[in-house]
Amino acid sequence: MALTEQSLVTIDDLSTGEIEAIFSLADEMSAAATTPDQGRSRQVGKLCRGKIMASLFFEPSTRTRLSFEAAMYRLGGSVITTMDIGATSLAKGESLADMARIIGSYADIIVIRHPWEGAAKVVADYSGVPVINAGDGGHQHPTQTLLDLYTIRKERQTIKGLKIALWGDLKYGRTIHSLIFALAKFGANILFCPSPGLEVPEHILQKLVTEYGGDVERLAPPKQTNKERLFPLDAVYTTPTNPHQLAMIPDVGLAVELKTGVDALYVTRPQKERFTTAENEELEKKYLVVDKKLLEDKAFRKTLVMHPLPRIDELAYDLDTDPRSQYFKQAAHGVPVRMALLALLLGAENTAVPRNNSKQVGIDYPVYRQDLDLKCPNTRCVSIQKTETKYLKPEFKIVNRDPLTLRCTYCEHGFEPQYIASSNWHEGKLSDKKYHRADSHWARIIKDENLIVFASAAEAESQGFKPSHYTGGRH
Amino acid sequence: MALTEQSLVTIDDLSTGEIEAIFSLADEMSAAATTPDQGRSRQVGKLCRGKIMASLFFEPSTRTRLSFEAAMYRLGGSVITTMDIGATSLAKGESLADMARIIGSYADIIVIRHPWEGAAKVVADYSGVPVINAGDGGHQHPTQTLLDLYTIRKERQTIKGLKIALWGDLKYGRTIHSLIFALAKFGANILFCPSPGLEVPEHILQKLVTEYGGDVERLAPPKQTNKERLFPLDAVYTTPTNPHQLAMIPDVGLAVELKTGVDALYVTRPQKERFTTAENEELEKKYLVVDKKLLEDKAFRKTLVMHPLPRIDELAYDLDTDPRSQYFKQAAHGVPVRMALLALLLGAENTAVPRNNSKQVGIDYPVYRQDLDLKCPNTRCVSIQKTETKYLKPEFKIVNRDPLTLRCTYCEHGFEPQYIASSNWHEGKLSDKKYHRADSHWARIIKDENLIVFASAAEAESQGFKPSHYTGGRH
Amino acid sequence: MALTEQSLVTIDDLSTGEIEAIFSLADEMSAAATTPDQGRSRQVGKLCRGKIMASLFFEPSTRTRLSFEAAMYRLGGSVITTMDIGATSLAKGESLADMARIIGSYADIIVIRHPWEGAAKVVADYSGVPVINAGDGGHQHPTQTLLDLYTIRKERQTIKGLKIALWGDLKYGRTIHSLIFALAKFGANILFCPSPGLEVPEHILQKLVTEYGGDVERLAPPKQTNKERLFPLDAVYTTPTNPHQLAMIPDVGLAVELKTGVDALYVTRPQKERFTTAENEELEKKYLVVDKKLLEDKAFRKTLVMHPLPRIDELAYDLDTDPRSQYFKQAAHGVPVRMALLALLLGAENTAVPRNNSKQVGIDYPVYRQDLDLKCPNTRCVSIQKTETKYLKPEFKIVNRDPLTLRCTYCEHGFEPQYIASSNWHEGKLSDKKYHRADSHWARIIKDENLIVFASAAEAESQGFKPSHYTGGRH
Repeated sequence: MALTEQSLVTIDDLSTGEIEAIFSLADEMSAAATTPDQGRSRQVGKLCRGKIMASLFFEPSTRTRLSFEAAMYRLGGSVITTMDIGATSLAKGESLADMARIIGSYADIIVIRHPWEGAAKVVADYSGVPVINAGDGGHQHPTQTLLDLYTIRKERQTIKGLKIALWGDLKYGRTIHSLIFALAKFGANILFCPSPGLEVPEHILQKLVTEYGGDVERLAPPKQTNKERLFPLDAVYTTPTNPHQLAMIPDVGLAVELKTGVDALYVTRPQKERFTTAENEELEKKYLVVDKKLLEDKAFRKTLVMHPLPRIDELAYDLDTDPRSQYFKQAAHGVPVRMALLALLLGAENTAVPRNNSKQVGIDYPVYRQDLDLKCPNTRCVSIQKTETKYLKPEFKIVNRDPLTLRCTYCEHGFEPQYIASSNWHEGKLSDKKYHRADSHWARIIKDENLIVFASAAEAESQGFKPSHYTGGRH
Repeated sequence: MALTEQSLVTIDDLSTGEIEAIFSLADEMSAAATTPDQGRSRQVGKLCRGKIMASLFFEPSTRTRLSFEAAMYRLGGSVITTMDIGATSLAKGESLADMARIIGSYADIIVIRHPWEGAAKVVADYSGVPVINAGDGGHQHPTQTLLDLYTIRKERQTIKGLKIALWGDLKYGRTIHSLIFALAKFGANILFCPSPGLEVPEHILQKLVTEYGGDVERLAPPKQTNKERLFPLDAVYTTPTNPHQLAMIPDVGLAVELKTGVDALYVTRPQKERFTTAENEELEKKYLVVDKKLLEDKAFRKTLVMHPLPRIDELAYDLDTDPRSQYFKQAAHGVPVRMALLALLLGAENTAVPRNNSKQVGIDYPVYRQDLDLKCPNTRCVSIQKTETKYLKPEFKIVNRDPLTLRCTYCEHGFEPQYIASSNWHEGKLSDKKYHRADSHWARIIKDENLIVFASAAEAESQGFKPSHYTGGRH
Repeated sequence: MALTEQSLVTIDDLSTGEIEAIFSLADEMSAAATTPDQGRSRQVGKLCRGKIMASLFFEPSTRTRLSFEAAMYRLGGSVITTMDIGATSLAKGESLADMARIIGSYADIIVIRHPWEGAAKVVADYSGVPVINAGDGGHQHPTQTLLDLYTIRKERQTIKGLKIALWGDLKYGRTIHSLIFALAKFGANILFCPSPGLEVPEHILQKLVTEYGGDVERLAPPKQTNKERLFPLDAVYTTPTNPHQLAMIPDVGLAVELKTGVDALYVTRPQKERFTTAENEELEKKYLVVDKKLLEDKAFRKTLVMHPLPRIDELAYDLDTDPRSQYFKQAAHGVPVRMALLALLLGAENTAVPRNNSKQVGIDYPVYRQDLDLKCPNTRCVSIQKTETKYLKPEFKIVNRDPLTLRCTYCEHGFEPQYIASSNWHEGKLSDKKYHRADSHWARIIKDENLIVFASAAEAESQGFKPSHYTGGRH
């Protein structure tokens, strides 16, 4: 089994076995770079000769774009680039699908960064060539996750059973969301240390438990004792393979457990560009800073200090020469990791992929089938953009029944509709075209294939539905 | 005879024989791509090794630029790029000639897109290396035309005698203007189907008849019967080699003739960026849309549906999977066609060019010689831009005497001056420094070398000329 | 001795021997280009295969960027590019040091243009790979200087003893400032011919004499006789190796001396983007224009006419075909000179460098050691920018004692502080924490290691210092 011709839209597209295969090849790529004149290295420099990578960046980026381009050049390939939405035909109103089809006929592989969440999936669906998501809005940035994991694995040999603390903006950082699921997949435990107001979204924690197993424990603020400043823990994820050690944390064991030390502290910058104007100033003021003083605590004695960069003020310069700091190495690892990924997706390398031993439970959620006006409520979702609605059909999965939760197939945003109905009212089992509250018992009764959801009562009524007796209150 | 070291500024720079040579090589380039490991393919990948293409895009473009760059990389060459007028020294007030000379000393070939009409000619005149026009304002975009022709020829084996319908914005689309002359050169018949208000300019039709032979018949609106919605024909061009079939159209034969079917329907988007603000909304509202329903008509049963892309709303997505649709193939053909062109102009390939069998009558129009203040009235013409007037001398050809019509050598815009005079008044044959109306008999009498034209009476008088007796009215 | 792994931040980083080595290799590069199929040429095309150059342009540029990129491609290398500050993570508040470290882990060499003066030094200090300054604000642009020198040397075989006139904007042009020191280093004499109001800054002239030897003579306006229009000389630098010929100029010898002709006339454009709004219009109006008429004077009979381009109106188009004009050749020389430089810094070539015979006196100025709040007063200096103050410590050299002058290590801006003190007041040799005027005798007495300078009296007092008796007046 090989990765050839696959796309990488979310980190879930890769099994742990595939990720291990990428890392093994990345090790070879690194080695080749240090001995440039030897056989393997010379071979590496020709692996993608004659291949073209399209590097499509519709959001600012230096690091990611240049890292991908350097990777392709190190493999002997070529790169065509577009860097700015203003300079592209998207400004003329072209759809992503059209662009994808055309660029797919020019290039052998596409790397795309785009502000719309789900954009990379659309490009992958239409281009006809492998596509790598280099960041789609607040959704995913899977190659960042790969190099984060690669860095941990290179320093600790394994990821399984480690304690990884995530620090700062856990709400808006796409890096963080990709990383959370990948860490779970590899059996790591996660300590959530958000900056106030930037807690990890509930749907991420839900997905973690539902799809990866293990437990999430929310820590109530009062329990945070005097370790609080040091460690603003608000939730802990314990991997199912490792339940006995960290499970006790919420009660009394936190201090005990932390004595064995945090393996990695992953710091993130405030994603100010995604803050609402109202929250901007307040959130920045309270933002947690990691510096040499914080790391004096025993728990951090051997901690790998990581950051996806760019940093602003959340990570002090006094750590730059500290041996625990990994962030510049992390960035440097981007090149061999991306070289390995490009070579594999382009079929230039055929490294055997070990048997899939992914931790992910491949849950096959039912698809929401009604063809009414339901739109993804995420304003950054690709499926609701003017140029894309001409051809994209919204698509949702029913990921929960209590509370009823739908997840957009494009941006993976989860939401809880307010009102529901059944499409088989004509079968007489339900009263004619009545709509119900989504938190009523109907939400658990209506069959998947009959379920209709409405964003509001007004929408339900505009579709010809009438309120049921109980829409006024919980029952 | 070879194409080596030539420039491609307008499609007229190529004979039909040269175009056929490009297409034959493009066929080889396509074949090489599908069998990448075989001898010819490996050779193709080295054809331009060591050569540098400068890709200078001073107007937004994704497709054209990336297509050219992919083509150069497929040939093993390198590319230097500039994408934005804001990032170039043109923003410091540098002239095109200076830029051309300098880039010409860095690169082996230049590809340029520029908003000024005639800009590519200036760059070709000064750079010292072959130049390819990738679009100069509303003037020309010859490689788009090449890939359009290549697509038709690939699907129909020939272009001669086909019926090609041009649809939509026939006024502002540079693609269309290049295509019209190329189709005529290859002996195709053209059906003009403009969106209301976006009819093909008169001077294009005039040039067609004068320089390519054949006939143009204007269809009066009332004759458009009930076929009108389907087929908003307002003019038909019949090639001189094929006069007996379509010539009857304007009278009764349209319905009869169309029974044999339209060979290709070339749809264009509204070039809104060139609309005046006043006309904007009105023109958009009336814009003709091509969709599956329109193509149900028998005349379109085997029609190739073409579009230069990007599309907006004028071409429905329901046609994307229709076997008649060629537009994504058209875009894909851009790479082999441009590979062939680059290889030939760079002298990397020396495909024998068949004897020139161009349909074009190489009319050698007299040059307007007076060195007064005459400026091209086209505000987008390169010759009147502030940075260029320092070194460019306006130049015109006298393409017609009744009505007197001059054509700018740079942007090829034709215009009819209002007033004229003769420079040999001192010979006594004409009254002293009198000026005349351009529609008087003088326009046919004054010799080419003596002709002086004025944009207005005021200008004539400021040059010291006085009105003749007859300037007040037609005579 | 080789240039491998060095950076080129200012022209002073290169000895004359190293520059000669670059020029010899550039000659080979030029020769290779004219005989592309022969052995040496083929070898040149592979010299940097597998190497990556990062081309980071945070200010508009066509010529310099494309010239560097063409050079790298001609050597068989690859290029990763960023062209716009808006498209980079600097817009997210990242520091230059972080960017440098990361790009240094992607690429083998970095070429940077940046609006902040001293930016290239910071990037060189942190990136871990060789860095070439492609222009940092108004500070330096050393490769422009290299190609200027290369052009003169190619046409005149030597630079030593020539008379080079510098014309136009001698105040803001970084090109000019680099060139001045390089000419001095090679033993040329310099005639300063500024446009009114754009005279060469005093600190440049000072550095010239102090560090390169020779003499500078200011010409008072009245001495400029009727040669004035032709030759708006306001200062002359005579090289120490050549004192007897030009030394007499200021008195009576100008006319005599100029009879032997000016060897090169180096014209510059007004650097309007650096003008203050107030001075803008006035300076432009008075700007000196070089045209065919000016060059009719006997002194210019064999003068090389040079210009770094782009030009605006200061150099007439009527000179373009004049055999004395070198400016397009200059631009063309950019490619072989940069090829040579890249190959040497990357260690791809190991041309023996002749023994350093630099004219520069390597003065080892004392460093200003106090760690108070002293900031560089140059608003464009990298060391005072918000993102950089987090990690950069300002650093100054004490280059003069009368008047007391400090020079910023980053931007090389020299300035004269107003007030001073000594840090060893507690030793009792000086009165307790008194501050003094910088033009008092204390400025010559206080030891380097004890010197404290203040930008203002207020600053001194905020540091707890009190005025000495004499701060009120000169003594």
